[in-house]
Amino acid sequence: MSEPQLRILEGVVTTLNDDGSANVAPMGPKVDQACQQFVLRPFQTSRTYQNLARSKAGVLHVTDDVELLARAAIGRLDPLPAIKPAGTVDGVVLCDACRWYEFEVTAIDDRQARTEIQAQVVATGRHRDFFGFNRAKHAVLEAAILATRVNLLPWEEIQAEFARLAIPVAKTAGPQEEQAFRLLSEYVQQARRPLADK
Amino acid sequence: MSEPQLRILEGVVTTLNDDGSANVAPMGPKVDQACQQFVLRPFQTSRTYQNLARSKAGVLHVTDDVELLARAAIGRLDPLPAIKPAGTVDGVVLCDACRWYEFEVTAIDDRQARTEIQAQVVATGRHRDFFGFNRAKHAVLEAAILATRVNLLPWEEIQAEFARLAIPVAKTAGPQEEQAFRLLSEYVQQARRPLADK
Repeated sequence: MSEPQLRILEGVVTTLNDDGSANVAPMGPKVDQACQQFVLRPFQTSRTYQNLARSKAGVLHVTDDVELLARAAIGRLDPLPAIKPAGTVDGVVLCDACRWYEFEVTAIDDRQARTEIQAQVVATGRHRDFFGFNRAKHAVLEAAILATRVNLLPWEEIQAEFARLAIPVAKTAGPQEEQAFRLLSEYVQQARRPLADK
Repeated sequence: MSEPQLRILEGVVTTLNDDGSANVAPMGPKVDQACQQFVLRPFQTSRTYQNLARSKAGVLHVTDDVELLARAAIGRLDPLPAIKPAGTVDGVVLCDACRWYEFEVTAIDDRQARTEIQAQVVATGRHRDFFGFNRAKHAVLEAAILATRVNLLPWEEIQAEFARLAIPVAKTAGPQEEQAFRLLSEYVQQARRPLADK
């Protein structure tokens, strides 16, 4: 039998907070092509972990909207994107996502800082096609990942990577990717300032 | 009115050769979200240019199959992937593509080495969803672009980029991405050898 094609999907997970409001977080579960089960690995300090441990349900989204991914990565989702109630689980669906997977938590292993949460998909839906390969979209995704590490990596490394990623953005972006890359560039510039200046 | 969201799509174009056989080539047209018209910029020396200039029709594909993209980039598509006749134009559709756009050529401007070919989509179809964001898939795409430039860029640069791209491949790939990255790594190693050794 051939090896199953498991790979990391860089997506977005919505969960419900204690007060019923929505939490939107970038998340990279390992999924198969059909996406029927997957494993999430949130940090125990994260809102997503706390919500999933309590409510045992959420919605995983596939999206090509890199501005949403960028904003979610750096906590700039105010106002929240448009949402609607999920059809099957107690949760919400992002109206602009390409596809979504409503899931229930079947097991939680929290013996490590990054919890392993087993998820079973119970309903799916689709709004539109994923654009396809675009180098600028991916450059923004890489920039968003870097932005979340701005306090962990040397500034020179962050700066060099942003300079490198600016090239495919300049060559292949649409307005959405340009805007998202600008937002992330400003964010890392801000984050660079010593804590006393903030 | 808001600016249209035009961006480069890294896709695959099929055209028919003089003898009726299929040519499969990676191509990066600038498209809008709906993909009704687009501009192709093949080199005048390319088979795609010659075929489009003669037959005035082809098929643009959106795919997440990076092994196909890698093989097409380095001319290792023997045997060809599975194809079927296009429904509307005189051409062929890749059976494993996510979506396809059958097009007719409406104008050719060949005053430069990279011709500008205006294409009008006349029929579309879809087989399956595009996976979504996966860092390994994109690393393979970047590696494939590098592979086509192996004789134009310094070897140290190629080597450093492949080393950098190997990291997301190791972290987020499925077997298809690992295989495609291996293929490209071997290709650039081979291409590095001085011409006299080949």
